[in-house]
Amino acid sequence: MTDFNKLVEELKELDSQGMFGEDFLQTWEKSDDEIAATLAVADALRDLRERNISTKVFDSGLAVSIFRDNSTRTRFSFSSACNMLGLAIQDLDESKSQIAHGETVRETATMISFMADVIGIRDDMYIGKGDAYMREVIEAVRDSHKEGILEQRPNLVDLQDDIDHPTQALADLNHIIHEFGGVENLKGKKIVMSWAYSPSYGKPLSVAQGIIGLMTRYGMDVVLAHPEGYEVMPEVEEIAKKYAAESGGKYSRTNDMKEAFTDADVVYCKSWAPFKAMEERTELYGNGDFDGIDKLEQELLEQNANHKDWACTEEMMEVTKDGKALYMHPLPADITGVSADEGEVDATVFDRYRKELYMEASYKPYVIASMIFLSKFKDPAKVLKELEARGTERRLTEK
Amino acid sequence: MTDFNKLVEELKELDSQGMFGEDFLQTWEKSDDEIAATLAVADALRDLRERNISTKVFDSGLAVSIFRDNSTRTRFSFSSACNMLGLAIQDLDESKSQIAHGETVRETATMISFMADVIGIRDDMYIGKGDAYMREVIEAVRDSHKEGILEQRPNLVDLQDDIDHPTQALADLNHIIHEFGGVENLKGKKIVMSWAYSPSYGKPLSVAQGIIGLMTRYGMDVVLAHPEGYEVMPEVEEIAKKYAAESGGKYSRTNDMKEAFTDADVVYCKSWAPFKAMEERTELYGNGDFDGIDKLEQELLEQNANHKDWACTEEMMEVTKDGKALYMHPLPADITGVSADEGEVDATVFDRYRKELYMEASYKPYVIASMIFLSKFKDPAKVLKELEARGTERRLTEK
Amino acid sequence: MTDFNKLVEELKELDSQGMFGEDFLQTWEKSDDEIAATLAVADALRDLRERNISTKVFDSGLAVSIFRDNSTRTRFSFSSACNMLGLAIQDLDESKSQIAHGETVRETATMISFMADVIGIRDDMYIGKGDAYMREVIEAVRDSHKEGILEQRPNLVDLQDDIDHPTQALADLNHIIHEFGGVENLKGKKIVMSWAYSPSYGKPLSVAQGIIGLMTRYGMDVVLAHPEGYEVMPEVEEIAKKYAAESGGKYSRTNDMKEAFTDADVVYCKSWAPFKAMEERTELYGNGDFDGIDKLEQELLEQNANHKDWACTEEMMEVTKDGKALYMHPLPADITGVSADEGEVDATVFDRYRKELYMEASYKPYVIASMIFLSKFKDPAKVLKELEARGTERRLTEK
Repeated sequence: MTDFNKLVEELKELDSQGMFGEDFLQTWEKSDDEIAATLAVADALRDLRERNISTKVFDSGLAVSIFRDNSTRTRFSFSSACNMLGLAIQDLDESKSQIAHGETVRETATMISFMADVIGIRDDMYIGKGDAYMREVIEAVRDSHKEGILEQRPNLVDLQDDIDHPTQALADLNHIIHEFGGVENLKGKKIVMSWAYSPSYGKPLSVAQGIIGLMTRYGMDVVLAHPEGYEVMPEVEEIAKKYAAESGGKYSRTNDMKEAFTDADVVYCKSWAPFKAMEERTELYGNGDFDGIDKLEQELLEQNANHKDWACTEEMMEVTKDGKALYMHPLPADITGVSADEGEVDATVFDRYRKELYMEASYKPYVIASMIFLSKFKDPAKVLKELEARGTERRLTEK
Repeated sequence: MTDFNKLVEELKELDSQGMFGEDFLQTWEKSDDEIAATLAVADALRDLRERNISTKVFDSGLAVSIFRDNSTRTRFSFSSACNMLGLAIQDLDESKSQIAHGETVRETATMISFMADVIGIRDDMYIGKGDAYMREVIEAVRDSHKEGILEQRPNLVDLQDDIDHPTQALADLNHIIHEFGGVENLKGKKIVMSWAYSPSYGKPLSVAQGIIGLMTRYGMDVVLAHPEGYEVMPEVEEIAKKYAAESGGKYSRTNDMKEAFTDADVVYCKSWAPFKAMEERTELYGNGDFDGIDKLEQELLEQNANHKDWACTEEMMEVTKDGKALYMHPLPADITGVSADEGEVDATVFDRYRKELYMEASYKPYVIASMIFLSKFKDPAKVLKELEARGTERRLTEK
Repeated sequence: MTDFNKLVEELKELDSQGMFGEDFLQTWEKSDDEIAATLAVADALRDLRERNISTKVFDSGLAVSIFRDNSTRTRFSFSSACNMLGLAIQDLDESKSQIAHGETVRETATMISFMADVIGIRDDMYIGKGDAYMREVIEAVRDSHKEGILEQRPNLVDLQDDIDHPTQALADLNHIIHEFGGVENLKGKKIVMSWAYSPSYGKPLSVAQGIIGLMTRYGMDVVLAHPEGYEVMPEVEEIAKKYAAESGGKYSRTNDMKEAFTDADVVYCKSWAPFKAMEERTELYGNGDFDGIDKLEQELLEQNANHKDWACTEEMMEVTKDGKALYMHPLPADITGVSADEGEVDATVFDRYRKELYMEASYKPYVIASMIFLSKFKDPAKVLKELEARGTERRLTEK
């Protein structure tokens, strides 16, 4: 059980002013203090909830969700986060809406925001599109708020774009911090972000990029491992290098999975598509060349099939630190013999870490709630104390 | 910022008793007092919300939405209105429901209403159907309430039918009143409801009919302009004439767009389908003659194409009062060169009025909330004062 | 109007401890006390709501719904129940989710439950599947709660499985109790659960099984009537026989509808598919043999067509006790000449009992709310008194 007061004191020392009234997209747009504040508020909100103390800061209000890709866990994490703050979800289902009828992003963004306090968007399918779309939405609602059309300015939470997956990366970071007993203990730890084989194709790069773009801030030895041809965005690698240098950590890249795993403290194994292929796919999509997309998909599947040896096997785990590296995955994983004939991870490895994997996922709703909380309150520490003092029961208890 | 107390005092002078426990369908079923009360409550609720005062009058309860046509803005407006009053939305998705399995309207209406305080329906596709369906629903829930099956009688809000679009027309009226600084200033103002070319077809007549059926109540010079063959329902024109006579205003119809625009204070330009064609379409639909419908659609598109000159162009705007008439549209508009090659309005005209158009739309959630509020409270002025006195914060603020 | 205090006193005498922290699947897994407590709490919650007293026991929290079959009334009943307790619905739409991507039940169950207090599931399509799936979900969330991954353990409400339809059966029981003026008056009453012809096919057996598995507990003379070949699950008949013996009632089965109807106090007429055919269908489905399924469906429709005389006609009603047996149906019914050319019931019979049928349905939301309530509170009587004492208005009233 975390210590609420310790978290609040910690929070007082952190400058999160820059998050007030703003949005949360890539983690590298946020200062170290802001990242630390996000985790502190997340843990504090979790502590209040575990003590059956209501964290509702809204009596009414809408949280708009826009999912341009399938999602179970992120959808439920967003709903959970908004619900615990008192907001009702209104999903913008583009198939049901008139967006098909040629509505501009700017107009739609305003039309759905008259009573929206938050907008959560997942748009990770096409390189150069998701992040750009979110910024268009932000600009639209900021303008409409300035013009007095919107009474409140909804703040955007990036639920995964084409570059970063901030809610995942921060949940992962919080998981590692809790596993290693404090952020100070991350220094010098080796974490491997490794590509792994999956029979499916075209998975976003944003998880891998999110990990190297965030973990390098804490003095860790971050290694990106993938077969040749699975390079990520160079811009993100530049960020990783910069953070590694600043934090006294390391960032390196290898095409040798075993070398990467050797003495690793944490191994994060996940499939993704090559950046260049994703760029090509976006272009084909832009041209409406769906035959081209099908052809590309076939090529990608064949290319993947050449790297079935890239899997988180028991054998691979053996070379990690004491054979006991922390195994991580955003889920769902392609588990060999379970959800795929050949996949990202051995069933025995997955099962051994199942509890940790579920715990990893459990941080996400609180990270999202924290992002919203910090966008709404200038003095988050004060509000958290207010909530504790108010002491409203989340669930009625027998008196 | 409106003056809350002024609105409450105004409200006390108005007789809105007839709305208590009732439904809101066509505006012409409501007295002038009732229309005025609807706008007063809408503005008062907005004022409370702008002052961060909770307008929740329900601690729990459901608001059922039934959308038989696509919708983004109306869906969100209804959700926003219900949320600010404390109701949770439960959408009746007829594709997911057993209605496909031959359930009668009467039965379904009762089955979804056990804890429903409000039912919002959009059904605008077929002449003679939408309004009739809504009245069937009302009769069903009224009976079930009388018989003690329903503890509360859900009140219906018409979110657009085949005849009128009351929430749109009232939001439009409130917009004009705010633009001209008071309802008293509408007297003598010229407003043009003009047909405009759209590449799509078969758009409902209810917006145009809603405008001529409402604006004629305020002494305005209301002109309906459309090409030959785009006549609206005669019954609604009769209503417009009656109101114009009573209010000392005018109602006229022309097939000359330019003549209509000349010296206009307000121009409302929107495409709609000819009433007769809509009647034919309903009949074809009734007979399940889908080839006939496709054929009719082709004819309508061709007929539309003969009137591409019916657009709200800069040239047209020039002949309006000082070239500065207020341009209105329910959105989304078919903007020439933006959302359509040739459409209802020039991009430069649309852009110049974008802020006003968004403001126009911003009144809708409050108009819907007001309709619900007036159906639930005998003494709305008293309840509004109660809410202000209660002073519950909508959003927690740092103390 | 029921007497709240009487219900609370009654409840104090009942042992419902076994329901605390648990789930509600088949009614025969619950003790007589637990069934009685479920109805007492349902009536008490209804009484509070009728007196405009809020029954919100949750300030926030999610209720997850999973519908693997179409539903209007059950969906709305579940939403209503959760809403009156203060929970927000989050539907798991498996088409939108990543379940298609090979997610295991165990994992999904945990991923959607981080802030879930309740999970409602309808899965009635395939023999041997629905109940099994629900138990998998329960095991998963119980484990995750034990492991500290879930702060709270969501309790499952069975919204219809392949064996029983507990929320329907209990709503039906409560209806009969209210109609006959007390559970003590059910002793010796004859209730017929009869198959009836429907042009559709493959309807679940769970309603029929739910009725014989529950009504036999109250000393009733329970008769199951169906044409040869429409047998139900033998296990459920064994339960019915056991209960009949214990309660001093009777359970019998006949292939003669008229004999069954003779002197009946209650007639419940509904179509269902033969158990053996449903088993075959499940197997075909398991083998992905969709041609086989189509063929089976044809056979079932033809088989049904041989029994069009199995309908609840005026003629049949005449032989019931004073020709006035209480007619029941879970709705929607296939009404001859209305929703089907030939169906389960004559239009005149259905119309005569319409009010009672709607009332029957009205108990379901409260039964569901009661199941949730009893899974959350050790001392339900105390909490009900607390709610009454708190006296929060559900709907604001003019002071």
